[in-house]
Amino acid sequence: MSRRIRLGMVGGGEGAFIGAVHRMAARLDDHYELVAGALSSTPEKAMRSGEALGLDPARIYSDFETMAKKEARRRESIEAVAIVTPNHMHVPAALAFLKRGIHVICDKPLATSLKEALSLRQAAEKAGVVFAVTYNYSGYPMVRHARAMVAGGELGEIRVIQVEYPQEWLTEPIERTGQKQAEWRTDPARSGAGGAIGDIGTHAFQLAHFISGLMPSELSAELTTFVPGRRLDDNVQVMMRYESGARGTLWASQVAPGHENGLRIRIYGEKGGLEWAQEHPNQLKYSPFGEAPRIMARGTSAANDAAARVTRVPSGHPEGYLEAFATLYTEVAEAIRARRSGAPMPKVVEFPTIADGVAGMAFIEAAVTSSRNNGRWTKLKV
Amino acid sequence: MSRRIRLGMVGGGEGAFIGAVHRMAARLDDHYELVAGALSSTPEKAMRSGEALGLDPARIYSDFETMAKKEARRRESIEAVAIVTPNHMHVPAALAFLKRGIHVICDKPLATSLKEALSLRQAAEKAGVVFAVTYNYSGYPMVRHARAMVAGGELGEIRVIQVEYPQEWLTEPIERTGQKQAEWRTDPARSGAGGAIGDIGTHAFQLAHFISGLMPSELSAELTTFVPGRRLDDNVQVMMRYESGARGTLWASQVAPGHENGLRIRIYGEKGGLEWAQEHPNQLKYSPFGEAPRIMARGTSAANDAAARVTRVPSGHPEGYLEAFATLYTEVAEAIRARRSGAPMPKVVEFPTIADGVAGMAFIEAAVTSSRNNGRWTKLKV
Amino acid sequence: MSRRIRLGMVGGGEGAFIGAVHRMAARLDDHYELVAGALSSTPEKAMRSGEALGLDPARIYSDFETMAKKEARRRESIEAVAIVTPNHMHVPAALAFLKRGIHVICDKPLATSLKEALSLRQAAEKAGVVFAVTYNYSGYPMVRHARAMVAGGELGEIRVIQVEYPQEWLTEPIERTGQKQAEWRTDPARSGAGGAIGDIGTHAFQLAHFISGLMPSELSAELTTFVPGRRLDDNVQVMMRYESGARGTLWASQVAPGHENGLRIRIYGEKGGLEWAQEHPNQLKYSPFGEAPRIMARGTSAANDAAARVTRVPSGHPEGYLEAFATLYTEVAEAIRARRSGAPMPKVVEFPTIADGVAGMAFIEAAVTSSRNNGRWTKLKV
Amino acid sequence: MSRRIRLGMVGGGEGAFIGAVHRMAARLDDHYELVAGALSSTPEKAMRSGEALGLDPARIYSDFETMAKKEARRRESIEAVAIVTPNHMHVPAALAFLKRGIHVICDKPLATSLKEALSLRQAAEKAGVVFAVTYNYSGYPMVRHARAMVAGGELGEIRVIQVEYPQEWLTEPIERTGQKQAEWRTDPARSGAGGAIGDIGTHAFQLAHFISGLMPSELSAELTTFVPGRRLDDNVQVMMRYESGARGTLWASQVAPGHENGLRIRIYGEKGGLEWAQEHPNQLKYSPFGEAPRIMARGTSAANDAAARVTRVPSGHPEGYLEAFATLYTEVAEAIRARRSGAPMPKVVEFPTIADGVAGMAFIEAAVTSSRNNGRWTKLKV
Repeated sequence: MSRRIRLGMVGGGEGAFIGAVHRMAARLDDHYELVAGALSSTPEKAMRSGEALGLDPARIYSDFETMAKKEARRRESIEAVAIVTPNHMHVPAALAFLKRGIHVICDKPLATSLKEALSLRQAAEKAGVVFAVTYNYSGYPMVRHARAMVAGGELGEIRVIQVEYPQEWLTEPIERTGQKQAEWRTDPARSGAGGAIGDIGTHAFQLAHFISGLMPSELSAELTTFVPGRRLDDNVQVMMRYESGARGTLWASQVAPGHENGLRIRIYGEKGGLEWAQEHPNQLKYSPFGEAPRIMARGTSAANDAAARVTRVPSGHPEGYLEAFATLYTEVAEAIRARRSGAPMPKVVEFPTIADGVAGMAFIEAAVTSSRNNGRWTKLKV
Repeated sequence: MSRRIRLGMVGGGEGAFIGAVHRMAARLDDHYELVAGALSSTPEKAMRSGEALGLDPARIYSDFETMAKKEARRRESIEAVAIVTPNHMHVPAALAFLKRGIHVICDKPLATSLKEALSLRQAAEKAGVVFAVTYNYSGYPMVRHARAMVAGGELGEIRVIQVEYPQEWLTEPIERTGQKQAEWRTDPARSGAGGAIGDIGTHAFQLAHFISGLMPSELSAELTTFVPGRRLDDNVQVMMRYESGARGTLWASQVAPGHENGLRIRIYGEKGGLEWAQEHPNQLKYSPFGEAPRIMARGTSAANDAAARVTRVPSGHPEGYLEAFATLYTEVAEAIRARRSGAPMPKVVEFPTIADGVAGMAFIEAAVTSSRNNGRWTKLKV
Repeated sequence: MSRRIRLGMVGGGEGAFIGAVHRMAARLDDHYELVAGALSSTPEKAMRSGEALGLDPARIYSDFETMAKKEARRRESIEAVAIVTPNHMHVPAALAFLKRGIHVICDKPLATSLKEALSLRQAAEKAGVVFAVTYNYSGYPMVRHARAMVAGGELGEIRVIQVEYPQEWLTEPIERTGQKQAEWRTDPARSGAGGAIGDIGTHAFQLAHFISGLMPSELSAELTTFVPGRRLDDNVQVMMRYESGARGTLWASQVAPGHENGLRIRIYGEKGGLEWAQEHPNQLKYSPFGEAPRIMARGTSAANDAAARVTRVPSGHPEGYLEAFATLYTEVAEAIRARRSGAPMPKVVEFPTIADGVAGMAFIEAAVTSSRNNGRWTKLKV
Repeated sequence: MSRRIRLGMVGGGEGAFIGAVHRMAARLDDHYELVAGALSSTPEKAMRSGEALGLDPARIYSDFETMAKKEARRRESIEAVAIVTPNHMHVPAALAFLKRGIHVICDKPLATSLKEALSLRQAAEKAGVVFAVTYNYSGYPMVRHARAMVAGGELGEIRVIQVEYPQEWLTEPIERTGQKQAEWRTDPARSGAGGAIGDIGTHAFQLAHFISGLMPSELSAELTTFVPGRRLDDNVQVMMRYESGARGTLWASQVAPGHENGLRIRIYGEKGGLEWAQEHPNQLKYSPFGEAPRIMARGTSAANDAAARVTRVPSGHPEGYLEAFATLYTEVAEAIRARRSGAPMPKVVEFPTIADGVAGMAFIEAAVTSSRNNGRWTKLKV
């Protein structure tokens, strides 16, 4: 095994959720070593958080700008940085690192506006770094299986895509109780113009694209805020049209009691249909038209190469959310090592990149615009 | 037990599907006796079909007009008629019987246009007969349970209604192979302006209304025909707005491989959510917000009175499609007997009436109009 | 359609459960007409029950002996009788009718002892009547499908059979509250030597035999009574050995909270496995070894001829308990008509007969014997 | 965070399955650092495997004896060792380390005979080390939830325990194809006297004990070998009696097509029932008698403290097999640190210990004995 990649982290200190996820994901396959961090915008919290993780105090920073500058000057500086802050910090933090040649693993949505995302993309291209956006659901083996089936024509031409992402956690106004996760996610200053559509709608959007290979050309959206006083949408309905003639519906909700994290996708083509649900990710239902539906399972002989490549343990030993997340980290590591060695990029690199990040912002922008215009069909600027 | 109601039938001869369903439904609880029929528009077929059912040859008719006229003159004439023809015959047949004071049980959709439906409603009101429209899914015990829960405020104010009705059977152009069911359902002359939206979309629409008690005020629809050469829509997406502020999505498809008859509804309110799927009708998932979801089952002590009233066999002994259908027939029988005896109508009569039939036509019309106008939000004329 | 078969019923009056089931089952496919009954051993109850069903008062009897005698003398006497009493009445009632050449449809278990069952079989053979025992779960289409698959060698040689039938309704001693169903089922005088093993264990046993075609040669059983004061077993574990070398386990329980009527069977052969659950009877899981498991559904093109033959409505329109029960009645009608016309028996007559009834009694006897002998392996006297 | 525990590993080199699992499990929560290994009994393979893991070549050993000896002399020697070899090596390897005061994490079954296991227990007690046996399924959050419910009396007195562990992978004689996992698991010299019963039966046995807190006093077993030529059992049926009067059935099979890794348990008490299935581990079905069954989910407010304590990510973000395995490693780390610091053991340490390992061997021995004696009820020597 080649040596571990030195990783830094921005955000993800005390009280955060996704920071710990990124750290476990980075650790699982042993490709990274966390060596530096600006884990909070509050200096004491940054220090406490860094110490709790066993970081060298000299590499615990109180802001990402300082971290980028100082790390860039070190001999064994970080090679990659994970940005796991609220949305409004993604772009400034990413810019600070990529301009110093440090690879970026950034949480989603990429930015708070499409414009900002586009300028980041330009900067990233110029810098030539690896830039991953953690649309983590694309790391699941059976999502990979589904994608390969569609690409291989096993469903025939795609006709209908139904994707949904219901949750229940914002059914009541918990953002007013000091719940940190709810607070920033319902705050336009930190989240951008989209609430549910940015936080979970973009996941659903990306998953549909990742599996189907199709990008909608236009959409009609209805964004609603059900909880009185909430400042961003908490329920989203979108109809989508694809160039190919396919049609799709996307529903995302944070006010749907009974749903924990109900990302689910169904794709129908001329020759068959697929269904996958994130909460039971090791199975994929495949229904060839005219035959009995089949339960394709991760790790079995029914799983294709694309699934097998990202499978760790045998069938029936369920892999979950962290494993899928870790798969992205591992694929990013392969890309970074290819750069490091000057080798060509590995042939199979499937992690979402800044292109997915930009597409997500185009989706949010089109949906917000459509909704403000009474559902007018609106083009996606991808 | 009071004596059986004498029933006639229009349509439902050889090669039909729904006619046999109506007959089994009428028979199950022993409230009806089939005594007359105009079972096909082809005279020999009408005769053969009638004989196969053991009807008195004198009461086998070759057209509904003759049947209505002759039966009206008999001493022991039919008291009710089941109309189970393709859509375009519903209204003329219904008119022929109701003007002779014969109660009508009519299949859905009620008519081929809203206008036609409205004039039928006027005639039915004038005639004063019992007029049922067989939106049969409203006969399921756990649908009744759900309805009573919503009416009782157990979900709080309703926010989101997601209803869908995917099927796979028209994935390929079987209407060109002589398949009778597919032929008339894809023929505007016999089906009206709606394909999937009329055949199954109206079921989904009615179910959402039946359970929620809410009627959308406007909708935005996208009707698509995927199978080349097909003359009516085979995939339908609809977004709905309710007066109360609730939002809904309806998806119906006949080209969704993997779905046999996938009618499914999910309703979310301030206090909880419900989920019910027609293919496993004896269970209802109820998710009170903040508590573990519960599997409410027909026949158990968890089922409420509304469900228990229409339950025949103990829990765990599944009741299905025919039983739910039979429940409507039984409730219609109660209504007819009340009329017969001059008694007031029974307090609990939940079968769908001509009002549901008219609403269904308003839904079709609004959806077709919206779709032709690029998804413009369009009012429902209910 | 040939004319309906004239049916009588013994038992099944007020307060009974299974009588109404038999009547609906007899009615569904329109092959029978209920014309006579001895519906209760209490004369007034027999009369009230018969009147409620609209029977001719002259054919409402207060005991089965009188009924058999008088009916036998009528011109249009009953042709078949359904015996739906508690177990101890099955044999005397059946004898009264079969010796008069009246066909018998008898509930299970057939008798209260193997000896009694064997003498009944002798009498039935002598009488030459059609004798059905309503092991009704064998009427489900996907049970027929499974049976045909095994018979056709699709699983290879059978190795393991796991069948279970858990219920929860006797978790508490409701027999002491006057609950009629619980009372006689826990009373050795009316039920025989077996409690759970007779009431539900025999269903599981018969289903395993019906599908697999195999009969265990010996068994080891552990019968337990968990509810203090109960006089019969309420939980049953059985290990079974088959001549072929196959092995099986049977579990039946009336004290398993969470189970309504959880009959479920799994069969494993050299080449594949099957799984079927009574509460969701329209699906059968088929797992060919080395391939993805398939969901075979009633009414689809994946269902084989044996299933299709007993299917009434299209796929996705669930058929349930009553439909499966009705299928037995319909097959019995075919057999009776064949007798009536002197024609040879129809080739496909799959309803359970007195042979199944006797086997059930042999099973009960062996299990009770084994359990009393500390689980000693005990031969089945079939 | 206190510094990582230095870990060594015996077994788990190239071609192994469980070694990689242990390494990921040790890494996930960042409590261990793998620094030494005797990863294979073939020296070149041991070297290659160690290098692939980035171990210091000086700490790559070709046998566990050398490793134990040399490590014990180092300054920064390993503090704990993971033993992940075939069964017959467990005891000698464990002895080598524990007598040098090195904590042991040993795979199951503990030994190849009960006698051997008992002598190991004595040695471990004498050494005073932490000794964990990786019955990993006890690490799942909802298993912890179930255990706490039973302990808290929420089910009332336990009556019935049904546990099963079917797999399909040995349906055909793949041990003859050179498949390494199959080879040693069907070889008495390396596995001991039990095949399926040792490999998976003990997992089922331990899980039932872990959740219920009950230990069977005697059992009756039927061990069968279905695949011709196989030297150990591949299908196991066991009936169990508990002191309390409870009854249980255990079924384990390696020849059950359709099952990947189907460990599943159902427990029924006077007041309710529980059901948990390893392949969908984030849910637990809880059925309070007389109420609707509830789906208790990891991470939700319905999950109790025992589950929450071992939960990493929010509800709906599935945790799987590796996470449950990692939980044992983390709890072992807590125990080791308590020893290190001289502090009392943490109050809540739930990982399985050598007591579970010994019980597992007693179970195997009793089952093999019973089966050889035609299913005679046989006492467990625990």
